[in-house]
Amino acid sequence: MSQNLIYLDHNATTPLHPHVKNGLMESCQIFGNPSSIHWAGRESKNAIRNARAAISQFLNVSPLEIIFNSGASESNNTVIRSFFKSTLRNEFICSEVEHPSVLKTLSELESKGAVVHKIPVNREGFLDVAYFKSVLSEKTALVSIMMANNETGNIFPIKELCRLAHQVGAYFHTDAVQAMGKLDFNLAELGVDYASFSGHKFYALKGTGVLFAKKGSPQIPLITGGAQERSRRGGTENVLGIVSLGRMCELKNQVQDQTTRLQGLRDQLQHQILNEIPNCTVTGGGAPRLPNTLSLVIDDIDGETLLMNLDIKGYAVSTGAACSSGNPEPSPVLLAMGLSKKEAQGSLRISIGWENTTEELNQFCEDLKKSVQRLRLIDLEHREQQVEL
Amino acid sequence: MSQNLIYLDHNATTPLHPHVKNGLMESCQIFGNPSSIHWAGRESKNAIRNARAAISQFLNVSPLEIIFNSGASESNNTVIRSFFKSTLRNEFICSEVEHPSVLKTLSELESKGAVVHKIPVNREGFLDVAYFKSVLSEKTALVSIMMANNETGNIFPIKELCRLAHQVGAYFHTDAVQAMGKLDFNLAELGVDYASFSGHKFYALKGTGVLFAKKGSPQIPLITGGAQERSRRGGTENVLGIVSLGRMCELKNQVQDQTTRLQGLRDQLQHQILNEIPNCTVTGGGAPRLPNTLSLVIDDIDGETLLMNLDIKGYAVSTGAACSSGNPEPSPVLLAMGLSKKEAQGSLRISIGWENTTEELNQFCEDLKKSVQRLRLIDLEHREQQVEL
Repeated sequence: MSQNLIYLDHNATTPLHPHVKNGLMESCQIFGNPSSIHWAGRESKNAIRNARAAISQFLNVSPLEIIFNSGASESNNTVIRSFFKSTLRNEFICSEVEHPSVLKTLSELESKGAVVHKIPVNREGFLDVAYFKSVLSEKTALVSIMMANNETGNIFPIKELCRLAHQVGAYFHTDAVQAMGKLDFNLAELGVDYASFSGHKFYALKGTGVLFAKKGSPQIPLITGGAQERSRRGGTENVLGIVSLGRMCELKNQVQDQTTRLQGLRDQLQHQILNEIPNCTVTGGGAPRLPNTLSLVIDDIDGETLLMNLDIKGYAVSTGAACSSGNPEPSPVLLAMGLSKKEAQGSLRISIGWENTTEELNQFCEDLKKSVQRLRLIDLEHREQQVEL
Repeated sequence: MSQNLIYLDHNATTPLHPHVKNGLMESCQIFGNPSSIHWAGRESKNAIRNARAAISQFLNVSPLEIIFNSGASESNNTVIRSFFKSTLRNEFICSEVEHPSVLKTLSELESKGAVVHKIPVNREGFLDVAYFKSVLSEKTALVSIMMANNETGNIFPIKELCRLAHQVGAYFHTDAVQAMGKLDFNLAELGVDYASFSGHKFYALKGTGVLFAKKGSPQIPLITGGAQERSRRGGTENVLGIVSLGRMCELKNQVQDQTTRLQGLRDQLQHQILNEIPNCTVTGGGAPRLPNTLSLVIDDIDGETLLMNLDIKGYAVSTGAACSSGNPEPSPVLLAMGLSKKEAQGSLRISIGWENTTEELNQFCEDLKKSVQRLRLIDLEHREQQVEL
């Protein structure tokens, strides 16, 4: 496309950071099997070792606590399935707004006899901690609650929830894909036993996940086979993907500045939109949020139509609306937070990234305003016609 | 390294083919999440669709019969674990020389109550079909036998074994990673229900697997989550990896020529080595073999020492010897084929690839001869010293 493309969907995935892209042609020369002991194997093994060092430094954990795999869905499956037994501790706790790789995996275990408690989250973005306390017990095997929600950006009180879980002897897992590079967190301080990350949510290649498993935490391999990752995950390593995430983690000292900058952009955008587009509300705006995420409900608008309209103008955003491309129902996250189907149908998510500029967001705000005005006018005319008929 | 590096370990993994490498920088611009409906998502979705078309054309199957995942270890785990139930059909059959991702996964199911029969393979490379018939029954749920062995290159009679399995109502899976691009096979003609492939064994990127599942064959997702791959495998797709394999599959018309060429190189190398290096035997030389693989036992030689010696000269080969880099025992494949530990300790595998030339192999043969002579001399002197002492 020749037109100016502006990507505002960084919670779905991110473009490669130039630092990653610049290293790609050199890195793809490293091709040996890391299990081979000759020069080609050693090159790959060293590349993985260096990446592991950079990533563990970024996360402030030990390199031994990192397991490379194919992505956060695999990490989530690995941890949750590790805790399924039909014995004493057979209860799980998650939030109602988890990613499908948590919810569906737990549903499967439920069908096999596990008990699953889902903690509600309200439309302001607050998780019901009282309910959490009421279902937490010595029957709880594992708690799996995300660090931040992908759709609304809401951040959950992991440290407190983890402390409570440990009090009853339960393990704690957090799907932290949305936090990497957007939040300043300390896994050791949070106390979690497991955390899931994905390279492609942080400007690295798709196909590489990082499972943090605290020293001593049990884990049953999901993929058995070779002795890779100290026999915790079989399969030849995705060397290029791992190296790409390692390179990205070298930019740790840019995270704080970017986070502050993104928060400024997001707050300014939110302010403009709420001021200039009537009948527009923020979802999850009451609770702590990721600095880059803005989840809106725009009255009398169909989210998918709006998305396609913005797409034509070159913008990439997201919606929780049920749409022709495969989702028969609106976003389960928004519905779980108490939004009506109609509201979810009018939802729009903007998630800003490192490469976005103030100019891009100003331009987006103008174009969003125009699109909403136009679609509302069409909607109004349509309704008037219906009345006339 | 400034010296000339010659890679002869293509059964472990392959370098990127120039056709794949040339497309890499352009392909990595395609970054959207294939599940997104905006321009960035559509670009990725189209790229995957095109790659799926190229790969399915290469394999001569329907695009719907292909499931992308992280690699053959994941494919093997997925298929095998799909067939574990504690009910009537609870028996599995594999060969004794399968990849660890088959053997270890079956061992795990065995510990949970499944019955596993392992078919012997002799040192000539023949699988014991009579034994196979004797254990095959209406209790057999799944047969999993590789198309070709990674260490010896031996090709097993999949079509016949599959026909027999189907007669008793069992499903048939083949780990075919070593066959892709080295053998002319037809999945439909072979009749298999499942087959595992891996991009990195065929000059594409690591981290991408292809599971062929014949239309109608049952499969339980190993990774539950999003609706990717028609809900058969959750997790954001490794777009670049998939695209790289798609590009490689465009070279289908080169496979036949390369196969013939590789067979010529291998046969010539084998001839030279057996002529010029005394006390050297081929493992699995009696049965059909991959055209690129040569598995040797070199008497009075330690495989690891030889490998390191060749490594210093710039050659990358493989050994089944127990070695310092992590394998406490010699190759289970060679031991299963009836080789003694001493023999396996003197094993060397050469696996030739598309980029290797006649000159490289001639040079390798010369250097191998020198290394073996030198090591045998040291060994002899060492033994004489011991006698003197």
